[in-house]
Amino acid sequence: MADHVQAIRDYWDTAERRDWDGFAATLSPDVVYDLPQTRERVIGRDRYLTFNREYPGDWHVAIRRVVTDDAGGVAWTDVRVGDEHVNAIHFFTFDDAGLITRVDDFWPEPYDPPPGREHLVERY
Amino acid sequence: MADHVQAIRDYWDTAERRDWDGFAATLSPDVVYDLPQTRERVIGRDRYLTFNREYPGDWHVAIRRVVTDDAGGVAWTDVRVGDEHVNAIHFFTFDDAGLITRVDDFWPEPYDPPPGREHLVERY
Repeated sequence: MADHVQAIRDYWDTAERRDWDGFAATLSPDVVYDLPQTRERVIGRDRYLTFNREYPGDWHVAIRRVVTDDAGGVAWTDVRVGDEHVNAIHFFTFDDAGLITRVDDFWPEPYDPPPGREHLVERY
Repeated sequence: MADHVQAIRDYWDTAERRDWDGFAATLSPDVVYDLPQTRERVIGRDRYLTFNREYPGDWHVAIRRVVTDDAGGVAWTDVRVGDEHVNAIHFFTFDDAGLITRVDDFWPEPYDPPPGREHLVERY
């Protein structure tokens, strides 16, 4: 099994440095990128590279947690744009060569807690 | 290392069956449940059990993917309430006995895609 932890770290490290050749080297030519929240899909390494190169904003990524197994892995990251921080969660699937064949990407946004559970929770 | 895949499946299987004794058996007495989107935290097994028992709605859970390593794991689930489906992502941390000590829980909701990337994406 390839080193999926290192591959995920390479993915984020090259993205953070805008090293698009290095970023492309983590991807299968047939990679599929899926955003279930917007029901968008980007198919193929070339389009996915362009998607990331053109992504607006001066974003910066810090890895909070990586979990991997034989099939792939997941990264929970803190993405900062200016003073704003958002969580992002990327599920990765790899081929036998250790290249990324699929990314399922989630961007959970803040929301107001529903009423009725104040007796059980603390806010922070 | 304990079987974290099985522990996560037990967590969801017992929750789905409302087997609260079985659910409690997956948890450390000191478990911390954290919802970063609402900045809510539930501390301790008793409160966390009550939080789940009292959770409103006829919800049903289907596991989509589980990834684990020595420290813990993550589950991506499809949660259905009536005809509505939402994704949920739970990061788990375990103690040496295989009990859950921490859950970081995300509920990414649908949103409209931003303009400017229509040339790169397909919708589904």
